[in-house]
Amino acid sequence: MSAIRHALTNRREDDFAAWYQEVVSAADMAEESGVRGCMVIKPWGYGIWERMQRLLDARIKEAGVQNAYFPLFIPLSNFEREAAHVEGFAKEMAVVTHHRLIADGKGGLIPDPEAKLEEPLVVRPTSETIIGDAMSRWVQSWRDLPLLLNQWANVVRWEMRTRMFLRTAEFLWQEGHTAHENAENARVETMRALEMYRAFAEEDVALPVIVGEKPENERFPGAVETWSIEAMMQDGKALQAGTSHYLGTNFATAANIRFQDREGSQQLAHTTSWGLSTRMVGALIMTHGDDDGLRVPPQLAPQQVVILPMLRGDDGDGPLLEYCEELRGTIAGQQAFGEKLRVLLDRRSGKAAAKRWDWVRRGAPVIVEVGPRDREAGKVSMLRRDRLWGEGGKPGFEAPTREEAAQALPGMLAEIQSGLFDEAAVRRSRNITRDIDSFDALSGFFAEDRRYPGWAEVQWCRPTGPALDAVVERLKALKLTIRNVPVDAEPADGACLFSGAPATERILVARAY
Amino acid sequence: MSAIRHALTNRREDDFAAWYQEVVSAADMAEESGVRGCMVIKPWGYGIWERMQRLLDARIKEAGVQNAYFPLFIPLSNFEREAAHVEGFAKEMAVVTHHRLIADGKGGLIPDPEAKLEEPLVVRPTSETIIGDAMSRWVQSWRDLPLLLNQWANVVRWEMRTRMFLRTAEFLWQEGHTAHENAENARVETMRALEMYRAFAEEDVALPVIVGEKPENERFPGAVETWSIEAMMQDGKALQAGTSHYLGTNFATAANIRFQDREGSQQLAHTTSWGLSTRMVGALIMTHGDDDGLRVPPQLAPQQVVILPMLRGDDGDGPLLEYCEELRGTIAGQQAFGEKLRVLLDRRSGKAAAKRWDWVRRGAPVIVEVGPRDREAGKVSMLRRDRLWGEGGKPGFEAPTREEAAQALPGMLAEIQSGLFDEAAVRRSRNITRDIDSFDALSGFFAEDRRYPGWAEVQWCRPTGPALDAVVERLKALKLTIRNVPVDAEPADGACLFSGAPATERILVARAY
Repeated sequence: MSAIRHALTNRREDDFAAWYQEVVSAADMAEESGVRGCMVIKPWGYGIWERMQRLLDARIKEAGVQNAYFPLFIPLSNFEREAAHVEGFAKEMAVVTHHRLIADGKGGLIPDPEAKLEEPLVVRPTSETIIGDAMSRWVQSWRDLPLLLNQWANVVRWEMRTRMFLRTAEFLWQEGHTAHENAENARVETMRALEMYRAFAEEDVALPVIVGEKPENERFPGAVETWSIEAMMQDGKALQAGTSHYLGTNFATAANIRFQDREGSQQLAHTTSWGLSTRMVGALIMTHGDDDGLRVPPQLAPQQVVILPMLRGDDGDGPLLEYCEELRGTIAGQQAFGEKLRVLLDRRSGKAAAKRWDWVRRGAPVIVEVGPRDREAGKVSMLRRDRLWGEGGKPGFEAPTREEAAQALPGMLAEIQSGLFDEAAVRRSRNITRDIDSFDALSGFFAEDRRYPGWAEVQWCRPTGPALDAVVERLKALKLTIRNVPVDAEPADGACLFSGAPATERILVARAY
Repeated sequence: MSAIRHALTNRREDDFAAWYQEVVSAADMAEESGVRGCMVIKPWGYGIWERMQRLLDARIKEAGVQNAYFPLFIPLSNFEREAAHVEGFAKEMAVVTHHRLIADGKGGLIPDPEAKLEEPLVVRPTSETIIGDAMSRWVQSWRDLPLLLNQWANVVRWEMRTRMFLRTAEFLWQEGHTAHENAENARVETMRALEMYRAFAEEDVALPVIVGEKPENERFPGAVETWSIEAMMQDGKALQAGTSHYLGTNFATAANIRFQDREGSQQLAHTTSWGLSTRMVGALIMTHGDDDGLRVPPQLAPQQVVILPMLRGDDGDGPLLEYCEELRGTIAGQQAFGEKLRVLLDRRSGKAAAKRWDWVRRGAPVIVEVGPRDREAGKVSMLRRDRLWGEGGKPGFEAPTREEAAQALPGMLAEIQSGLFDEAAVRRSRNITRDIDSFDALSGFFAEDRRYPGWAEVQWCRPTGPALDAVVERLKALKLTIRNVPVDAEPADGACLFSGAPATERILVARAY
């Protein structure tokens, strides 16, 4: 029996959903806003999203993509132009119908009937149609291509069942939109964005992902191809962490994005879009969290090192704070991952132990406690969040000198970053099963009494139309979905799990968020 | 007669409004979106806003304010709680009434009558009420104060007459919201934010501003005090570039933000809010633009230096590009304003002169052209945007060696930044008149036939209520408004311009955006 008293009430192995909610709350990530389906992202959660923005934005700019900003509101008629697109989104959009409020005569307010919009406006669920309009104005000649745009924005999709970071009515994301001379160039861009997402997920979020194409039934409404990165959460479910779409000429036709080609004739542009959202914060929590709260990869931690002076409200506090401030300065002068270290000296009053557990639950990578005796000995008490528990169920503090601590930090942070990735990668490998060769075996693998079964990689013959629908229905009965066709999977060498015909490729099947 | 052929069609002195629109378009800043009142911010315009965000955000974080994110939608009932606030905003808000679309049976879409919201949602015009809700949950004790929050967000105010960057239905901004133990602390924060805006405007945007308190009639709806920074545009009109509000306990009462004070009794928090928006981009254009387009202060330029190789589509292009790439690397290794230089090598095909004028209109601070002869001589042709015209109506190129150019750039950029500020400050000083001592004289000063008269600083006795209303009406007849009561003005020593009573302070009176 472990003597460890964990910082959270819920254990991952007992009730993953309750554990997730507790981490979101205990790590000060977000909370319900009182507005249906909308969350408040609290400073620590938003700080992590800001780090994601900064690191992904650098990758976006590196690729020559330019940021811009397009309207929040999209006229209803824009959605009527692309049939598959509207079919996919029409059911869940916020619709603005009035532009003024008036008093209702009973002390309240109502939308002013005199101020009804002639054409309702939709709050953007995604921006293909409105950005397509701009592209049609900006693209005249092949010289204007490729046109590589991105926007950081809020979008709204009315969701019936919401869950913080994973599925909320309003969420934050970036959406890339590009136009190209031909299918080949657009497909290259689709894959470039996908590879950018893979690198961002694995290098910055420490989130191992599987890159692959979505099956036909999971395509973005209006897309010719949809590709995704899929990550495994600690309950074995899959989470789609980013998507990249080759849209063919579908949206170019709808928005009339035409250009004069090198031979002088008019052509439709080929477009792509790709997006990654605050969902990634949910993926981070469900991948790196443990029974003591969150563990933030150092690359994304708003504060990588938190210094906690053990203040006593007496004369000793002054010299102690001075000692800590010097330490803070020394650490802040160091670099990790090519940036200055982010270090916070937490001067708040309150018990040191309570503050320590606050930062443990939030997942600050390294906590440095300093008491009067540490100061006298020229030392500090250092605790790594990824090695929280030492012997005897006690926090695993080490006691280096102040100088040793400051020097060790850059390497330690790099080690924590790669350690979190390795841990997740090992867990994922262990939980992908590849020897399932019948639908019955699949059904047994995902039986209700099997806890956190993970993913199954199975072989199929890539059915389309009604045959695919039938497969999707059979999987749905087991609450399963096809995640993607991994690009790195082995070639098929057996029979299709669903039809028995010779298989053509391998797919990942899983429960999913 | 000048032989200069300017890059724009419109002159500031002929038609300032037409000139402004031309710069917005010719500098690739923004364009109409086709969605009523909403603009598309194009990459160069958005790049300038991103620089503003980065520099202002650093100042916000430096002050210990934390970023967070709150819902786009605000329930109608939130607005009913604070009477003055709803009075100020109720007339111009976008209202969401439905959450689904359905086919209308005629090939179109309509809001689904079955999906009408029980309580309409307002698209935030500002977030005091929704952030107040969160504060009421987060603040329990004096130990939770001060609570210092900020969000970067889009907001919507339905405007009848819109103008790009200056007045659009949707705009981007940051809004700071803070809660404090008492009035004194909240007032200190109000003034800290104001001073932060002043420093940002003057140091980063090179925009001289006058700091002061708004008169009662210009207060933010629900505020106890509103303070502003006011800038003078080149047509002599004023533009409010940022505001900071002390809200007293008005919003705390409405949202029930209460805390246990140091003595153990329940108190209402005192709150502040402060905001700065994409309007600042409009201020930048109207302050630093000239008859050749925009001039972007180097601190805000997405690209501070643009290298233009004179490509000829022949064998010489390879060595020329190589020479330019080396130059780019050398320049990128330099620092200005504590950051690496932002330098672009423009490899696009097209005539060098056409590309030069593109970058002149966009206002890149320094353009470096390199032709085959420059390369052979180890030189470059360098053009400063702030000294565009040399002798004989020709662009004022200089011809330093490549090494001299790279070494000179950091100092040159600093010089351009301070030069733009000085130029605007001198113009403003010249255009504030302080010797107007009667309403008739004021009326004459702002007579219709006087072009770009500037501002008048006059004395008054700070009337309130109906007396103030009367003053506001008299000014309105002259299309004038009171901008603010400058904190740095001389003490009053004369009579009130409106009543003849002994004056108590000086105010700025102007036409305004």
